[in-house]
Amino acid sequence: MMAGQERRDRSSTGEDASAGKGASEAAEDSLLARFAAIVGARHVLCDAGDIAGHLVERRGLYTGATRAVVRPGSVAEVSAVLALASETGTPIVPQGGNTGLVGGQIPFEHGREIILSLSRLDAIRSVDRVGGTLTAEAGVTLRAVQEAAEGVGHIFPLSLASEGTCQIGGNLATNAGGMQVLAYGNARDLCLGLEVVLADGRVWNGLRALRKDNTGYDLRDLFIGSEGTLGVITAAVLRLFPSPGEKVSAFVGLEQLDAVAQLYGRARSAFGSGLTRFELLPRIGVDLVLKHMDDARDPLASAHPWYAMIEVSHGQAGGASPAPGNDLRDTSQAGAAEAMLLQVLETTLADGIATDGTLAASGPQEQALWDIREGMSDVQSREGGSIKNDVAVPVADVPAFITEADRRMAALVPGCRPVPFGHFGDGNIHYNILQPVDMARDAFIARWDEVCGVVNEVVHAFGGTISAEHGIGRMKRHLMAEIKDPVELALMRSVKATFDPKNILNPGKVV
Amino acid sequence: MMAGQERRDRSSTGEDASAGKGASEAAEDSLLARFAAIVGARHVLCDAGDIAGHLVERRGLYTGATRAVVRPGSVAEVSAVLALASETGTPIVPQGGNTGLVGGQIPFEHGREIILSLSRLDAIRSVDRVGGTLTAEAGVTLRAVQEAAEGVGHIFPLSLASEGTCQIGGNLATNAGGMQVLAYGNARDLCLGLEVVLADGRVWNGLRALRKDNTGYDLRDLFIGSEGTLGVITAAVLRLFPSPGEKVSAFVGLEQLDAVAQLYGRARSAFGSGLTRFELLPRIGVDLVLKHMDDARDPLASAHPWYAMIEVSHGQAGGASPAPGNDLRDTSQAGAAEAMLLQVLETTLADGIATDGTLAASGPQEQALWDIREGMSDVQSREGGSIKNDVAVPVADVPAFITEADRRMAALVPGCRPVPFGHFGDGNIHYNILQPVDMARDAFIARWDEVCGVVNEVVHAFGGTISAEHGIGRMKRHLMAEIKDPVELALMRSVKATFDPKNILNPGKVV
Repeated sequence: MMAGQERRDRSSTGEDASAGKGASEAAEDSLLARFAAIVGARHVLCDAGDIAGHLVERRGLYTGATRAVVRPGSVAEVSAVLALASETGTPIVPQGGNTGLVGGQIPFEHGREIILSLSRLDAIRSVDRVGGTLTAEAGVTLRAVQEAAEGVGHIFPLSLASEGTCQIGGNLATNAGGMQVLAYGNARDLCLGLEVVLADGRVWNGLRALRKDNTGYDLRDLFIGSEGTLGVITAAVLRLFPSPGEKVSAFVGLEQLDAVAQLYGRARSAFGSGLTRFELLPRIGVDLVLKHMDDARDPLASAHPWYAMIEVSHGQAGGASPAPGNDLRDTSQAGAAEAMLLQVLETTLADGIATDGTLAASGPQEQALWDIREGMSDVQSREGGSIKNDVAVPVADVPAFITEADRRMAALVPGCRPVPFGHFGDGNIHYNILQPVDMARDAFIARWDEVCGVVNEVVHAFGGTISAEHGIGRMKRHLMAEIKDPVELALMRSVKATFDPKNILNPGKVV
Repeated sequence: MMAGQERRDRSSTGEDASAGKGASEAAEDSLLARFAAIVGARHVLCDAGDIAGHLVERRGLYTGATRAVVRPGSVAEVSAVLALASETGTPIVPQGGNTGLVGGQIPFEHGREIILSLSRLDAIRSVDRVGGTLTAEAGVTLRAVQEAAEGVGHIFPLSLASEGTCQIGGNLATNAGGMQVLAYGNARDLCLGLEVVLADGRVWNGLRALRKDNTGYDLRDLFIGSEGTLGVITAAVLRLFPSPGEKVSAFVGLEQLDAVAQLYGRARSAFGSGLTRFELLPRIGVDLVLKHMDDARDPLASAHPWYAMIEVSHGQAGGASPAPGNDLRDTSQAGAAEAMLLQVLETTLADGIATDGTLAASGPQEQALWDIREGMSDVQSREGGSIKNDVAVPVADVPAFITEADRRMAALVPGCRPVPFGHFGDGNIHYNILQPVDMARDAFIARWDEVCGVVNEVVHAFGGTISAEHGIGRMKRHLMAEIKDPVELALMRSVKATFDPKNILNPGKVV
């Protein structure tokens, strides 16, 4: 089982990727000409200006190099590109909307990798209104999928801050999460079937639209979340859900972190499966939004240390495979969700759990609330260096985790500003730390590994994970040996060697 | 990627499994003595009487042979047993409650395989009431898991006719389905983490209880549904759901098969995520239950060609990750579900969709209704030869599929009696065919492959699957080449060769 692992370990940083190494310019030109023969010369981008946007991670953490960005326009072209890459030992970095947060989509600095852009595979192949499925190619943006679903009276509930740019192929390759996992699951749970091009160019057609199918190994879930290291996803059958008739959101101020857990418990009891989002925000995050985002205003009259953002959905029957639950009393009545949410809020205010709150039904006012949440990442980058952690612990432990992590951070980097926010209902917190106001950005960022190491210690103590939804990519690969059971890591390496024996698919990422 | 495949193809029926082949009695005794040294002599069953129950598939379709049933009492012992099996090239057939329906748990007739019984790993290691999880060892029966969940005010919603006997390790190894998949998903969806012993005896501790964890490849879902061919599941972290406050069931008579789809549409609209079961029964199935089951009585005054069985659950908040939906008006009121279901039934009666129906709230009367559904399999075996198909097609196509399959069956085996029943809401029908009354059982069963071949053709025409929930095992392995994309099958074989290079784990099953 370990055959090939030694070889891969040596090559995994791309250091022995031999394609082009020492090759003459002529040989390089010849290779690019062969890619051009497959996809057309105008779809092999070599000009520095054309490729610049593909090389930079959006927060500037990684800037890679490449000879070319190859942009196939069909599955057959993806297949031919990978067959050629396999034949010539050319390492490939698959790229969707370039919104990944762990550097998985960025080539290494040595420049010997080719970027395979999936953006031109942008067709929605079919939408099945009755069956509640949609078949999209990898390069369709998440927003376009959402809009196509809405066009047939459904929703596609994956929802991310980057949804206008990110592509569904990347969402699946990274098993994206986002704000409605609480109710609908992550990208994995929203996918029924895949089409994947393998390292050697073979195409696996696994575009099934069945809810139950026990005919052999679950390859679909192996490709989902493998970050382009086992195959290139070219299309997927996605699950749609009936559009909720009514949505209502609340923005709730809290004096104590523990109160968030209490409020969550009440909301879950009251709304059950109708509780579609439950997010945590710290005051510092709201302050940054007010400072850096145009048109942002504080929804509440005074400041509170913590905020919960709640979305309740109801009306319409459940999805293709909803889990049971109640629970909106008197759902036959329009505005029932709002009345019910108001009642829950009034009770929590009366009981001293919450200190203030506001409600907004669907529309611009609700969007303004969620803009605060969605701006939470971007505004941090406007404030200087920010060290990101995407962790999860059991839900009940979230307040204790934050308290302990804050304590450790204050001791490690005095003056640093933790901004813990995110998906409280999943136990998934983006535990980001902003640089001290008076510190140089680079000096703070230089302590990235040290800071994350301490956060990871705290995560480990709570039985959590250091990557709840962003993945491993390049950023966290060096941590795999310490966070993973050695048996698990060995199995992953065996799988990688089996699916990609020449190590050409995103080498040096994940495992 | 194909390395090892040739070898596996030759060995996959177990024909070249060399352990013990031509070995002397002494060598065999020596091997068994080494197993006995691991698990204790009294846990190596060799007596024909002791092992007989492990060798027979419950419908009598397969009767295997073995030198011994080895019954380890701990994960460490499972590890040592597999290490020894690996060292000696001894093929192993993992076995739980021996309730599988495709022969996966039965050794081949050549007798060179050892049965690895997981029954002694029967501890529930922990129950987390707050987090809604339960960690059980492989040998815990499904009913014991259900009861432990109920002990903390939750449910474990996997529900099968064999739940008193089947074991959770086998449920996960086969990705079991059952009657509540509609609402809660199949075994895969109900599992957060696994502990697995690999072919060479290494133990993978993947017993995570996190809802989100994107740190590498999804090995969990690869083992789930692999039918003991990639590793031996020894324990699992399972998801529990809050117990519904109220459950109510209906037994509805219908004149037309198409009416089932109409009733399903109405029920889904009315109850959304509260619709926890929706089953289809034909009159012939009810007749057989009335004929063969003690105490069974017809719930309705007259006979109807088709029946739908509906269960609605509500009250209590949704589960750990419920999908959204409504939907019981006025859920604050006890008996609301019953009133609402009654209203839906009255409307469908008034509209001519249903012709009669009866309701039963939780209790003996409701259990009596579900006993009819749960007896549906057993009573067929009391009526002579029965050829089983476990298929799924898109839900909307179920009536057309049954109509066409019935037409083909009538032409193929005049007088045969199709008994199509099962999980209508998942598109999953057990399309069983009873022998003609005047035909010899053996003569009918001899036509198994021919009959299933025609059913599979119809399934294929509707874009369906020939194994929705029972798996592949031994019974359907020969069909894999025709139903699977060759690329998919090659990938599965590569995975098998990677995880089990000596082909000792349930060889000749699945791939």
